[in-house]
Amino acid sequence: MSETRDVALTEEMVRKIVKEEIAHAFKKDPAAKRACIIASKGTLDWAYPPLILATAAAAAGMETAVFFTFYGLNIIHKDFERKLIVSPVANPAMPMPVPMPDLITALPGMQTMATYMMKSMFRKKNVATIKELIDAARESEVRLIACQMTMDVFGYKQEDFIDGVEFGGAAAFLSDARKSHVTLFV
Amino acid sequence: MSETRDVALTEEMVRKIVKEEIAHAFKKDPAAKRACIIASKGTLDWAYPPLILATAAAAAGMETAVFFTFYGLNIIHKDFERKLIVSPVANPAMPMPVPMPDLITALPGMQTMATYMMKSMFRKKNVATIKELIDAARESEVRLIACQMTMDVFGYKQEDFIDGVEFGGAAAFLSDARKSHVTLFV
Amino acid sequence: MSETRDVALTEEMVRKIVKEEIAHAFKKDPAAKRACIIASKGTLDWAYPPLILATAAAAAGMETAVFFTFYGLNIIHKDFERKLIVSPVANPAMPMPVPMPDLITALPGMQTMATYMMKSMFRKKNVATIKELIDAARESEVRLIACQMTMDVFGYKQEDFIDGVEFGGAAAFLSDARKSHVTLFV
Repeated sequence: MSETRDVALTEEMVRKIVKEEIAHAFKKDPAAKRACIIASKGTLDWAYPPLILATAAAAAGMETAVFFTFYGLNIIHKDFERKLIVSPVANPAMPMPVPMPDLITALPGMQTMATYMMKSMFRKKNVATIKELIDAARESEVRLIACQMTMDVFGYKQEDFIDGVEFGGAAAFLSDARKSHVTLFV
Repeated sequence: MSETRDVALTEEMVRKIVKEEIAHAFKKDPAAKRACIIASKGTLDWAYPPLILATAAAAAGMETAVFFTFYGLNIIHKDFERKLIVSPVANPAMPMPVPMPDLITALPGMQTMATYMMKSMFRKKNVATIKELIDAARESEVRLIACQMTMDVFGYKQEDFIDGVEFGGAAAFLSDARKSHVTLFV
Repeated sequence: MSETRDVALTEEMVRKIVKEEIAHAFKKDPAAKRACIIASKGTLDWAYPPLILATAAAAAGMETAVFFTFYGLNIIHKDFERKLIVSPVANPAMPMPVPMPDLITALPGMQTMATYMMKSMFRKKNVATIKELIDAARESEVRLIACQMTMDVFGYKQEDFIDGVEFGGAAAFLSDARKSHVTLFV
């Protein structure tokens, strides 16, 4: 280990050292420490997965960003409590008290009922609310980024969004995502 | 290559060796050998992509896991044959014998008809059934993981699922996904 | 740096060199230069995200491929202008002039109206059309790959698709995706 060592390192010895360091480096691959999630849907049910995954990633020590685009802007809108509803139509996979044809689930009032049902199912099982998940995300330094292009298309202004939201475009998302193993489009 | 070599390695020679080994190591990046897929939807059409991708990844020699969450729990439910149906409503991209307004596709019986149509289209083209894809996944050691949190919310028990299913949370998914290049949310 | 250097490199010196080179190599991780996107949905709204992300990735100098499968085949069909429509049913997140129950949004004519509304919102904000995005993708050498299996299921032929489209399967997608940090299922 010292410069006074008599025997010079051979190529074989050097290759062995290099392989050790590389194996070690891959275990600490910086891409394994980052998660970039796109949230593109704006209903109550699809607001959960990006927030649950983002808070879980942050809890695991990962640098995490969620990019809200298209209908997903609803999730970080100041008025999200009222905007995030759920439609039972065209989702025969949604658990309903009794199976219903789409014509019934399309009746006035059924969105309200499905939204109420989902909220009470989640509350009964002590799942965090969207508000609690957003608070947890902000506390654990998950970056919340609103897509400027779709904000503009839908006529939203920066002040329409909750505190702590950043603003950026697809290029900004990609400059993080290209350094991340976990990249998900929800 | 031997310790008796007369000329000591120079820094230049060492850097050349290191670059060779690194280039070689990146070709064998362990993240390229893993795929982690989330299956979140519970209709017949959206049951196909995660299972087709997972079995293709396993066939390519990748360590593959599918994490079933939210409506995606339907896919590995013991009763999946009856649960996986498809709704033509709100999907104007679904090929139908004639174009139909949503009001018609919402009529009672149309889910049954669309489900029947899709199954027969797939059978006619010799595409594997969901059952065959699940069997292929299990035979090729794809890990099938049910999301405990959503199981609990929807009131499912471990015995409601097919054999070979594991149980875990978002943290378990992320601990695999952070080591994987292929991470997809279906 | 020359072979005439008097002092041989020690193990310590070699490890330092190796760490430098590895840190440098991870900054140029080849997986950070690739993006692989699956486009699986066939409505006007969901045609945008894969094309916007793909053209942004190409603009950032990434090698980019989009794999069109299931309903996503609509996006690269020669007749995409007519095929890409949007349904307001079951998407309470879609901005509408007034909130509507699903039963109203399911009426005949509402898909046409919602498609017209979305196109004019995008045009007013100078967002590129689907045609312009496809042209930009082809000019920036984004690979557009149609999924052969689903082409076959839906009865499409190679000549049904726009110029420049390649044809491949899930295995082809995965052989690119496993070398990419950015992998997204839209």
